[in-house]
Amino acid sequence: MVFDGLYAGRAKMMKTSEIREFFKLTEQPDMMSFAGGFPSADFFPMEKVSDVLQCLIEQEGKYALQYGPTEGNLELRTYLAQKMTREGVPSSTDNILVTNGSQQGMDLLSMVFLNPGDVVVVEEPGYVGGLGAIRNYEGERFPIPMDEDGLRTDLLAVRLRKLQIEGRLPKFAYLVPNFQNPTGISLSMERRQEILSLAREYGFAIIEDNPYGEIRFEGEPVRSIKSMDTEGRVIYLGSFSKTFIPGIRVGWLVADEPLLQKLACAKQATDLCSNSLGQRMACRFAASGYIDDHVRALISLYRTKRDLMLSCMEKHFPAGVSWTHPQGGFFIWVTLPEGMNARQILLKAIERRVAFVDGAGFFVNGSGKNTARFAFSEASPDKITCGIAVLGELMHEEMARFRKAASA
Amino acid sequence: MVFDGLYAGRAKMMKTSEIREFFKLTEQPDMMSFAGGFPSADFFPMEKVSDVLQCLIEQEGKYALQYGPTEGNLELRTYLAQKMTREGVPSSTDNILVTNGSQQGMDLLSMVFLNPGDVVVVEEPGYVGGLGAIRNYEGERFPIPMDEDGLRTDLLAVRLRKLQIEGRLPKFAYLVPNFQNPTGISLSMERRQEILSLAREYGFAIIEDNPYGEIRFEGEPVRSIKSMDTEGRVIYLGSFSKTFIPGIRVGWLVADEPLLQKLACAKQATDLCSNSLGQRMACRFAASGYIDDHVRALISLYRTKRDLMLSCMEKHFPAGVSWTHPQGGFFIWVTLPEGMNARQILLKAIERRVAFVDGAGFFVNGSGKNTARFAFSEASPDKITCGIAVLGELMHEEMARFRKAASA
Repeated sequence: MVFDGLYAGRAKMMKTSEIREFFKLTEQPDMMSFAGGFPSADFFPMEKVSDVLQCLIEQEGKYALQYGPTEGNLELRTYLAQKMTREGVPSSTDNILVTNGSQQGMDLLSMVFLNPGDVVVVEEPGYVGGLGAIRNYEGERFPIPMDEDGLRTDLLAVRLRKLQIEGRLPKFAYLVPNFQNPTGISLSMERRQEILSLAREYGFAIIEDNPYGEIRFEGEPVRSIKSMDTEGRVIYLGSFSKTFIPGIRVGWLVADEPLLQKLACAKQATDLCSNSLGQRMACRFAASGYIDDHVRALISLYRTKRDLMLSCMEKHFPAGVSWTHPQGGFFIWVTLPEGMNARQILLKAIERRVAFVDGAGFFVNGSGKNTARFAFSEASPDKITCGIAVLGELMHEEMARFRKAASA
Repeated sequence: MVFDGLYAGRAKMMKTSEIREFFKLTEQPDMMSFAGGFPSADFFPMEKVSDVLQCLIEQEGKYALQYGPTEGNLELRTYLAQKMTREGVPSSTDNILVTNGSQQGMDLLSMVFLNPGDVVVVEEPGYVGGLGAIRNYEGERFPIPMDEDGLRTDLLAVRLRKLQIEGRLPKFAYLVPNFQNPTGISLSMERRQEILSLAREYGFAIIEDNPYGEIRFEGEPVRSIKSMDTEGRVIYLGSFSKTFIPGIRVGWLVADEPLLQKLACAKQATDLCSNSLGQRMACRFAASGYIDDHVRALISLYRTKRDLMLSCMEKHFPAGVSWTHPQGGFFIWVTLPEGMNARQILLKAIERRVAFVDGAGFFVNGSGKNTARFAFSEASPDKITCGIAVLGELMHEEMARFRKAASA
């Protein structure tokens, strides 16, 4: 290969992953797939989008189709600063950077914070997009296990003391505190306070990624970590991808001004600016209050899907298999008995036209082989009903085979 | 500052630049500005965009508003592969990566190729976006001077021999061979062959960034370097930003498959995917042949602006000032007598409501203080006529002052 001697160190890990190839398989139209964590396109406000786009081009087309500021459209940033302020994070436009989905926020933050080998605390299991951004900049990911209240801050405290002795304190902790991808678990209020206090003690930043927080089916909202932050230590990532539409790639980042200026400078050499059309569309929908109403509708629609998937699992999954009961978001996390292999079940499931994601990819060091992520967000009720039944049957067969092998 | 000890090495250079602040000044509506290199929004096909968007949402809204593949929309990639093949670069969809403007192509390539301190050959003066992407990954930029035929390959050959002795051969050369930003100069056919031959000899890659190539006012098109590349050594960057609209941020990258897969992997952790709506819109406009027709119209419109600006310069600029006569693109490059300072003239020009960009920012090491970039693309004919006249008067005054000081 002509470039073999030319690649950067970080490029060694970059190759088409098995998972990416596998995802293509799960996207076949007749597949009953719970693999992709996409929002349901059935819930996109299609006609309204068409109307707004028409007005937008007619009234401000010269700007909506032109380059815009690197930091983002000023009206959108004004709306977002007000929204964040309402949500307990006092903000001005100078604290808001518009990004290509919150994934770009993670990319820019990794770019600005990470030298090769720098330590980053991550949830285990953790969001693959966040893990990928850290890997792109050769950060070393230190996974901390989760329980039903989220990241185990007690284990984190122990780990931090060790890292301090080694002189390798983390640059930041990357967290998805609400209805986490992949587990659906939320970080408890107590743990939020604890992790913020650890961040202060050990001098690291917290990246709080919150794409799902507004899609809460029940229970009281828990304050964001950013809302408890008095010194600009927490960076908040928001997104319209789940509450509105993902195809326009509009998210945002909230941080103190000195960091935000560095990030804007980094972004300028990354893509000059985010797409103006999508930003102005999101702004019209958000500022008119439409998205708030839309989210209320989405909550009810996704709650129905969650309830259906949970009841189907209850009905069809064999004893010994357990799963989370998320209060919001898109995902249920399934745990098979220790020793069973979710990837093997997945391969057999695909033959029966059912798909999910086996969990190993969400673990930094290849553990979690007996876990799996199920998204209830995109599949139709029919596919959920039928797919979980087919899977339940397969799991019963596999469980019998597993017990037989274990007792042999 | 809470993060002062946490930033990565590369973040030291990231701060709001003087130029960025200054640009805000030049964007005031009453300014006669030749500073920004934007396409003219007067030429955006507004009504047609509105129609196409409506059809798009109606016919394929579920996909146009949803996440899409990281590599880009398959129809658009198919169109682009055919376009590249027609232009002498045999390509399949596996050779095409859709990017957020060609700027993202530069970001991803820098990410994949550059370790800190790696050498990159750049044109001097060179495009600031390209220079910025290299800086983000701590590449060391080795500038090679240009003349009226583009980058001086004779000087490059000398420099390469020295770098070889030092064991510091470049990873890639970054070139804008057609109607370069900032100079408007094109690289001659002979030099294209020479630089490709040097790349083979010394084992580096060539990044050929071609946003302006199709906007040619006169003269015969020159073959792309990529079309002469038999071993996948050249990476080509294309963009719809100048030939159609920039606000949707759709560009593309052409490379051999092994590199393309690495870049797609890098892109996935950068932003998951480019915006689906913009990609599908670009695809409809491009595949229907509309953009080809549109480019023919643009050529005539921008040629008129170039002719006007050149004739105004001829009429108003004092003897001793020289400028390029670009055969296409958006830019004219102005050189003042050695020792004069374009920044000082610019500051006085802004007081008279005229703006351009002084040239020093396009040089790696702060030289070029007597140069300036004038964009004729965006300003109205009235502003060109009036603004160049005002500037001519100012330049006459400054020239008189300069000569007086020199003879004193």
